[in-house]
Amino acid sequence: MTTLRGLQQPELSKKLYKIIKAENNVIGAYESAGRERISVASQLSDWGEATGDENLSDVSDKLGVLLSEIGEQEDIFAQNLEDYRGVLKQIRNTESAVQPVRDQRTKIADEIQKLKYKDPTNTKIVTLEQELVRAEAQSLVADAQLSNVTRQKMKEAFDLNLAATIERAEKQIILAQHARRLLNLIDDTPMVPGDTRKAYEHSTTSREILNEAESDLRAWEPSVVPVESNAADMGSNLMPKPEATASDADAAVASGAAQAHSSQEAISNDADEASTIATS
Amino acid sequence: MTTLRGLQQPELSKKLYKIIKAENNVIGAYESAGRERISVASQLSDWGEATGDENLSDVSDKLGVLLSEIGEQEDIFAQNLEDYRGVLKQIRNTESAVQPVRDQRTKIADEIQKLKYKDPTNTKIVTLEQELVRAEAQSLVADAQLSNVTRQKMKEAFDLNLAATIERAEKQIILAQHARRLLNLIDDTPMVPGDTRKAYEHSTTSREILNEAESDLRAWEPSVVPVESNAADMGSNLMPKPEATASDADAAVASGAAQAHSSQEAISNDADEASTIATS
Repeated sequence: MTTLRGLQQPELSKKLYKIIKAENNVIGAYESAGRERISVASQLSDWGEATGDENLSDVSDKLGVLLSEIGEQEDIFAQNLEDYRGVLKQIRNTESAVQPVRDQRTKIADEIQKLKYKDPTNTKIVTLEQELVRAEAQSLVADAQLSNVTRQKMKEAFDLNLAATIERAEKQIILAQHARRLLNLIDDTPMVPGDTRKAYEHSTTSREILNEAESDLRAWEPSVVPVESNAADMGSNLMPKPEATASDADAAVASGAAQAHSSQEAISNDADEASTIATS
Repeated sequence: MTTLRGLQQPELSKKLYKIIKAENNVIGAYESAGRERISVASQLSDWGEATGDENLSDVSDKLGVLLSEIGEQEDIFAQNLEDYRGVLKQIRNTESAVQPVRDQRTKIADEIQKLKYKDPTNTKIVTLEQELVRAEAQSLVADAQLSNVTRQKMKEAFDLNLAATIERAEKQIILAQHARRLLNLIDDTPMVPGDTRKAYEHSTTSREILNEAESDLRAWEPSVVPVESNAADMGSNLMPKPEATASDADAAVASGAAQAHSSQEAISNDADEASTIATS
């Protein structure tokens, strides 16, 4: 049992929180479709055997193998979507971590306003104004980190999502085209009562079709439009790596952002934690 | 409220009955995945707008359009699977209709056996033996009809199923590849605190990508391995059309199958009814 507060999301991460939840339903739907299709494939093979029709029995058995693999691809797709979802969580966790930094700045500014109105000579105002400068620096860092993480992880997340879509599609096309060849092995010439069907002679061909499908599937390689990323330029503190933009980073430190060190660490830790969650 | 007996399936159609039921779950899963993905696409667009980041806002909005269309394709796929499922029902209905014909033959044969044992001189035996000849003829017709329907509809059903799989796959590849181009419009160069991002200049490009995706999708044409069918040679009585195999059909009639006329009609009516159900 945990506190109910844990279930509430900061305003900043509410939208993504809902998206991540909805994607969980999507993944569940694909898992269920995959599971049912694998079961249907084996039932189809059983049904074909029960017809006592040698032709139907062989084709439905081999077709079952390909349909089962098509179902398997739905499951692999669901697993890949889970990886995509894990990357979305990294953005959401950064959003959640940035919210209190912003809130803190707003709170101090409000307090200063209130004091200036009620007790304009209070010496606490000077202390608060120094605190506000630090809070604003923290906020600047947090905003840069959020922007860096969001843009980069957005690309990474949908790179995974769309590559998974293409992989499922290409593999299922291979399987479905070979499955269509199997259908042509069914002789559906109508017969009259008392006739016997021609002996079934295609069990070698159907075996070959299965083997070809298997080897085409094994030879599959991704052929996606490349998505370029500058992820390598970002350090673990969610900012440009020092070597990459030393002068810019120095400027930022000079402007007071150095004081924001602890907040910066807190957020990048959250992002690290998020990637741990994503891979678990 | 209907009788519970209606829910029981004859032995012959039990396996297919279960497959058809499982396929209903598969279709439900794809409908649910499609619905959720369309909803996620629009939430993604909202989230992008809420980031206040012009670059993310534009890309997530356009990406949302393509993802929504990918979700739409899941729904079209589910509808196509419904057509496939309708064809499976035609096989199942024929199986159900053939069962009582077989049962009738068995029942008469059993009765003759019993009488011959208990009361070998009973004149009812002769009447029953005449009945058995008719029942056997009916059974021969029913078996031919079942074989004709099963082989033909099996090809038709999986032709639809696999063509739908390929259509969804090819269309989603088109959409996903264009969506990947959109991702490249996100500038994910990490920035330092206080920096401002370069102005976003790709809103025309992103519009063009959407237009190209739309026109590629419109230009899509099926490219499937053809499935050949002899469906045209089968008449509405689920047997070869008279003109196609006049001599065979005559031979069958001469062998006593003509007496089976009423049963034959009953089964082909069931098959007709099945196609009505399938299209409703």
